[in-house]
Amino acid sequence: DMAVRHYTLDINLSTPGKMLGKSLQKLLPGLLSIFHEQELSETIHDTNGHGYLATFVGKNGRLVVLRVHSHGLVTIDLQCHEDDNIAQLDNVSDQKLPVLVRGAKVDRYWPTADGRLVEYDIDEVVYEEDSAYQNIKILHSRQYGNILVLDGDVNLAESDLAYTQAITGNGRENYAGKEVLILGGGDGGILAELVKQKPKMVTMKVIDGCKMYMRRTCGNTLDKLRGDCYQILIEDCVPLLKKYVQEGRTFDYVINDLTAIPISTSPEEDSMWEFLRLILDLSVRVLHPKGKYFTQGNSVNLKEALSLYEEQLGRLSCPVDFRKEVVCVPSYLEQWVFYTAWKK
Amino acid sequence: DMAVRHYTLDINLSTPGKMLGKSLQKLLPGLLSIFHEQELSETIHDTNGHGYLATFVGKNGRLVVLRVHSHGLVTIDLQCHEDDNIAQLDNVSDQKLPVLVRGAKVDRYWPTADGRLVEYDIDEVVYEEDSAYQNIKILHSRQYGNILVLDGDVNLAESDLAYTQAITGNGRENYAGKEVLILGGGDGGILAELVKQKPKMVTMKVIDGCKMYMRRTCGNTLDKLRGDCYQILIEDCVPLLKKYVQEGRTFDYVINDLTAIPISTSPEEDSMWEFLRLILDLSVRVLHPKGKYFTQGNSVNLKEALSLYEEQLGRLSCPVDFRKEVVCVPSYLEQWVFYTAWKK
Repeated sequence: DMAVRHYTLDINLSTPGKMLGKSLQKLLPGLLSIFHEQELSETIHDTNGHGYLATFVGKNGRLVVLRVHSHGLVTIDLQCHEDDNIAQLDNVSDQKLPVLVRGAKVDRYWPTADGRLVEYDIDEVVYEEDSAYQNIKILHSRQYGNILVLDGDVNLAESDLAYTQAITGNGRENYAGKEVLILGGGDGGILAELVKQKPKMVTMKVIDGCKMYMRRTCGNTLDKLRGDCYQILIEDCVPLLKKYVQEGRTFDYVINDLTAIPISTSPEEDSMWEFLRLILDLSVRVLHPKGKYFTQGNSVNLKEALSLYEEQLGRLSCPVDFRKEVVCVPSYLEQWVFYTAWKK
Repeated sequence: DMAVRHYTLDINLSTPGKMLGKSLQKLLPGLLSIFHEQELSETIHDTNGHGYLATFVGKNGRLVVLRVHSHGLVTIDLQCHEDDNIAQLDNVSDQKLPVLVRGAKVDRYWPTADGRLVEYDIDEVVYEEDSAYQNIKILHSRQYGNILVLDGDVNLAESDLAYTQAITGNGRENYAGKEVLILGGGDGGILAELVKQKPKMVTMKVIDGCKMYMRRTCGNTLDKLRGDCYQILIEDCVPLLKKYVQEGRTFDYVINDLTAIPISTSPEEDSMWEFLRLILDLSVRVLHPKGKYFTQGNSVNLKEALSLYEEQLGRLSCPVDFRKEVVCVPSYLEQWVFYTAWKK
């Protein structure tokens, strides 16, 4: 592997905490021995009065950046190659920040929707493909099983039954004999759960790879395009919804699993919001008067985006009421909002 | 705030992916404009044949480290002060890694038990105290509510009813009229849930701060040391357990919420394991023949530590059977193992 290991350590000298002091005591001998064991070329930089800055370049391309900021914060960066064994640093057990692994073949960093840095226990890229619509990856996580990642967003893991339960009403609905329309749902998770209740249903656009690598999620439902109580239509959902509107066809449940709410908060300009409004309006138009519309929102922290979505719900050609629920989806590493809407 | 913002960007030139290329296209103009807008002092370092390395020091203490590793990986680091407004970089929306904030007053990085780097949405330190036993922090998370952090480990958040449910048997038990002993449980979460079922119970060692700042977890149960169906004993649990053994007193349930299983895997040497074995043995000795012992394990990924724990379960003075369950505790950002044990 060509990865670079990046160790960071920060010590605040102006307010020396107990924990930080301990870290420093443990790390510094390790660092100093690295500095001394080899002939490091040291460069002291002129910072124009912004504290002390020295860089050290050593054997094997090791780089140390040592900064003492004028307000008393010390930051130390140590970068070395994956195969450069710095045993001293791996043994610094209470070192504050786990090592950043940069440029690894298997990327472990998949930020949350609310923009936080999180590292996953990914150990393998199981599947990767660029479809006409998106980049599709299936990554293996030791604790979450296979994870479907679409265009860099964590979409669903085999651990995430909580997602499927939330977007189907968390056990409050009875799907037996009902007409259900799933928009998206290409991982087969919703379909696999609902067929247990024997509804009549339609679904669309299978995501390549899921049939093979997300079997704990989809079961065998994606193996054929038609089952006893379902059919999978490989078409764009907008023309299909328009056709249903024209035919006057209605559904007891419409489950929109196409995409999360856009994070952008300029709905008038953004084509994602335009697409969302179009799908939402068509979905409600094909909804039976007593039917329910289920969809995911986004991270509970994206309050502006969620408010904007709720505004859109108030502007449909057919007025709706809605409620929302916050759910913990294991592999998301953030709390997620789900919506239920129905005709007034 | 004296924090330093640390942007990282990595580009693999040898296998240029679609996403990376896009990131590079977006970030590079921003970086170059920063390089050019000011008179940066550039230093090109001799790397002894380990690729290209240049450092740039600019106004306000900005530092850029640009490395081109010989195998084609480019790593860029940009460090600047919190108040140094680099608008170009904040607008690079699909930049891969969220910015690292180093040395901030409110620390957002609390690694998981299995050693992964995760950032929390912490916006406030609500409470901090060093007790005789541990460092106690209560931090406010936008999505998880207040989080109790003991010696740097995320212990319980107000969102984590799933933890309390798991360590009390996930609804499979009936506590009405039962004798329950809680070891630890100082946040009051277990107590608050169990009193709803009117058991007779004993618990120990309240954690300071929880009564005030974890009220969604503990309710009013910690406000007084004795309630209709509980008493809180402020004593060490080892002498207390020994006294109960001597008296021949037994409990229908013993819930050990003292600490997670030690991560260290040298149980013969480690005093944490010794303490764990002592508590475990005493707990089983005060357990009614038909009683149940509940406890948390650790991250599902720490397979070695979990195996060692299970070995200890096989070596008690009184033989037990056990089962385990993997549970998603929202604020943990990792899957957690819980154990139930009972006398053979």
